[in-house]
Amino acid sequence: MSAPASQETYRQFLDHLRQAELLSSCGSVLGWDEQVNLPPAGAEFRAQQVGLIAGLVHERATDPKLGEWLRELEESSFVANPQSDSAVNVREARRDYDRATKFTREFVEELSRVCSLGQQAWIEARRKQDFSLFLPWLEKIVGLKREEAKILGYGEGVPYDALLDTYEPGVTTRQVQAWFEPFRKDLVKLLQEIQGSSRKPETSILESAYPIEQQRSFCKHAASLIGFDFGAGRLDEAAHPFCSGFSPTDVRLTTRYDFHHFPGAFFGTLHEAGHGIYEQGLPQGEAAGTPLAHAVSLGIHESQSRFWENFIGRSREFWEYMFPQAQAVFPGSLGKVSLEDFLFAINAVEPSFIRVEADEVTYNLHIMLRFELEQKLVAGDLEAKDVPEAWNSAFTRDFGITPPNDAQGCLQDIHWSFGGIGYFPTYTLGNMCAAQFHEAISRDLGDLPGTVRSGKFGVIKEWLNEKIHRHGKRESCQKMVERVSGEALSHRPLVSQLREKFGELYGL
Amino acid sequence: MSAPASQETYRQFLDHLRQAELLSSCGSVLGWDEQVNLPPAGAEFRAQQVGLIAGLVHERATDPKLGEWLRELEESSFVANPQSDSAVNVREARRDYDRATKFTREFVEELSRVCSLGQQAWIEARRKQDFSLFLPWLEKIVGLKREEAKILGYGEGVPYDALLDTYEPGVTTRQVQAWFEPFRKDLVKLLQEIQGSSRKPETSILESAYPIEQQRSFCKHAASLIGFDFGAGRLDEAAHPFCSGFSPTDVRLTTRYDFHHFPGAFFGTLHEAGHGIYEQGLPQGEAAGTPLAHAVSLGIHESQSRFWENFIGRSREFWEYMFPQAQAVFPGSLGKVSLEDFLFAINAVEPSFIRVEADEVTYNLHIMLRFELEQKLVAGDLEAKDVPEAWNSAFTRDFGITPPNDAQGCLQDIHWSFGGIGYFPTYTLGNMCAAQFHEAISRDLGDLPGTVRSGKFGVIKEWLNEKIHRHGKRESCQKMVERVSGEALSHRPLVSQLREKFGELYGL
Repeated sequence: MSAPASQETYRQFLDHLRQAELLSSCGSVLGWDEQVNLPPAGAEFRAQQVGLIAGLVHERATDPKLGEWLRELEESSFVANPQSDSAVNVREARRDYDRATKFTREFVEELSRVCSLGQQAWIEARRKQDFSLFLPWLEKIVGLKREEAKILGYGEGVPYDALLDTYEPGVTTRQVQAWFEPFRKDLVKLLQEIQGSSRKPETSILESAYPIEQQRSFCKHAASLIGFDFGAGRLDEAAHPFCSGFSPTDVRLTTRYDFHHFPGAFFGTLHEAGHGIYEQGLPQGEAAGTPLAHAVSLGIHESQSRFWENFIGRSREFWEYMFPQAQAVFPGSLGKVSLEDFLFAINAVEPSFIRVEADEVTYNLHIMLRFELEQKLVAGDLEAKDVPEAWNSAFTRDFGITPPNDAQGCLQDIHWSFGGIGYFPTYTLGNMCAAQFHEAISRDLGDLPGTVRSGKFGVIKEWLNEKIHRHGKRESCQKMVERVSGEALSHRPLVSQLREKFGELYGL
Repeated sequence: MSAPASQETYRQFLDHLRQAELLSSCGSVLGWDEQVNLPPAGAEFRAQQVGLIAGLVHERATDPKLGEWLRELEESSFVANPQSDSAVNVREARRDYDRATKFTREFVEELSRVCSLGQQAWIEARRKQDFSLFLPWLEKIVGLKREEAKILGYGEGVPYDALLDTYEPGVTTRQVQAWFEPFRKDLVKLLQEIQGSSRKPETSILESAYPIEQQRSFCKHAASLIGFDFGAGRLDEAAHPFCSGFSPTDVRLTTRYDFHHFPGAFFGTLHEAGHGIYEQGLPQGEAAGTPLAHAVSLGIHESQSRFWENFIGRSREFWEYMFPQAQAVFPGSLGKVSLEDFLFAINAVEPSFIRVEADEVTYNLHIMLRFELEQKLVAGDLEAKDVPEAWNSAFTRDFGITPPNDAQGCLQDIHWSFGGIGYFPTYTLGNMCAAQFHEAISRDLGDLPGTVRSGKFGVIKEWLNEKIHRHGKRESCQKMVERVSGEALSHRPLVSQLREKFGELYGL
């Protein structure tokens, strides 16, 4: 056993991590700007910039000094209480260090460069509905991700485990399959019942005229209402909506507006604002820049966006509060629409092509399709060039409709273009977590519907801050769900809430 | 004499410089984003980010390896022809290295951090017209710049020399005084004659209603017309208009719009587009990221903005081409205005408070005032707290009017807040250079007025590309002016062009 680690070691260790984190946040600014502002000719240069920063971050993440400090700290009183700030920082730094040291700087820079250029190629391919423009990049990316899985290793498991673990630490492919298989059956059954119902919403009311400028201010208003702090953040436009937190004091949301489609930007904004409120609520002060100050996982992150988008934002009570305001902003399109009709329209369940605009029931089927294709891609059972065909055939099988073009099929999502293979399952995990958090807050607040109906969103935000955000990365996703909801993570609470909500709407 | 430097040394040397330049360009993106997008709460974190990047750039700029390569290359055939790419790269790298190695990393990071926060404080102080909010930062900045002058050294000269040399290499305070003193007399005389004229323009036509959205598209249209490539750049809004080139493939312009003031955004955009066209025209390919690929100096940079803003953009011929378009875009405000009245209004000479909106005659008096105050600040003959009084008293002396508040006085410019003391004189040098370039292109093209009148701006841009932009940093400002115009840099061509133009307008 080595000598007890000193305060000085712990201080150096944290300083080092904070500097690496600060440098990494510079890369995030470059990434945000790439999505929001980049002129086309700047793509190659931007790829060089992000590649350089990624390489410098990697250099710091793999610094042998970090390994020495970790060995020293792991034998010290700093880890005596595994829930203490210091133990969490050591645990998470160990995980990151062990992962990072498996990669060469060349690999990291190449991956970063390819994904930066890949994103620009994806934007163009999607715009032109031409998969061939993206194919060379997808081939490179899939090749690099297969290599990444090998480098990371996956024990007794499958290659996909290695990638999934990046986004949802500790969760395996087998575990996800165990959640998704019964869940899919429940969803398909619910969908069939809904499709068999004689009640049909009138969704055309959401597709009349919604002037962009009004959408812009209404979306901003809604994000602000639910608690996103515009003094510490922004809302911009991008081809693919996302949220990027450089620090809790600077969080950037994006959305996209369509004159003839109200829900896209509105619920997209509530969604990203949910992510943003989480980022703004993460630990600051002493903890700033340390591993503890991070989000738990992408699943928990998604639970926060889905919570606001669906569990609050598509609820009857939310619109009892908001609908008069929406009518005032869009008098031409909503002035004569009833709350009931509007509520049914924004909760229409209908197989459709675009995941981010899918309803709460079919959404998870979109995820399951991607989960299936990604496993094959990583295992080498599917090649990049065959993705459009595989996508369309699986889509037809699951949804009964075939995408008319790749922009509405396999080109719709940005994720593969930035190397985010293994990322999608966390979206459905997020829905599952959100359902359990929703049950918990309903219990805790006593009258959640009343709180929402009276627009007291601050109470809800504070509950999330207290129960989830301020804990940073202290617990795993599953531990957090258990602590907050009192139950293990499962698809059942989500299914039961979906059945209740859509049962009422569709009269099942 | 050491062994001849190898190709390998030169390659390593360039790779090192390119990487430092790439890293520095990441700092430029952070700086641009700070001006254009930063939410207020993000200021402190952004200061940490830019401080870190500045420190890392400094580390590379002072790497002892660079010193060794330079010593080796300076004894080699790479510098045999002083005009060759390699000799220019060695010469400029030597200058940068000798300057950079005088500073500690701590000093560089502190300066960067203070200036980043200082800019945010300046924005707020200007908005609230409250100098006291900026004073603590100005004190820090002036202190750091005095220290910087000492660290850099200034031989037999004055401290201000050291700062001026940063922006205008090789030019001394004494030289600037020698240009400015006779120039000031000529300007004052011209101004008196103009003020004595019975002809007065009707400037209120520029202050009726100019809807922002139309201004935005008209400004973009104009920038594009004169040759700014929006495929490799953007136009955004910021409190202080500027141009930032990350690379020739990604150049960002900013401007600011005022519903009741057409010239501000329009000529501001032409001005920044002039800078942007220069940045887009700098050497690329092999030279990318090397010292050669940089702009000559701020004086030459300013010549490019002033050339388009004033020599082309405020000329009769330009509006013979553009006025019908302007009338179509702003029918309510310009529909019934004559070209003559419009032309006279945009060339109105009148002492006013805001430099960036000043006419071509009084503009240089604004610069001379700043030059005078800055010398005193750096010499210790003026303290930050006394700046408002000194400003207002000098302003009243020179312009016969007193700023009603500091936002229209000493808080109007961003420069001091980012540490840009020594920067202002380059604006008037730029005007002088532009006048000489304007004489040269008039000679070379034969019929410049005809070219402008028919909107053939591409011909002009190509001339600038060929004569100025593509040369990068091969020559000094003064050498470039001599090569292009055939005469030494002087205020006389500018004065004679001003006399001719305003003599005609005001009937002198």
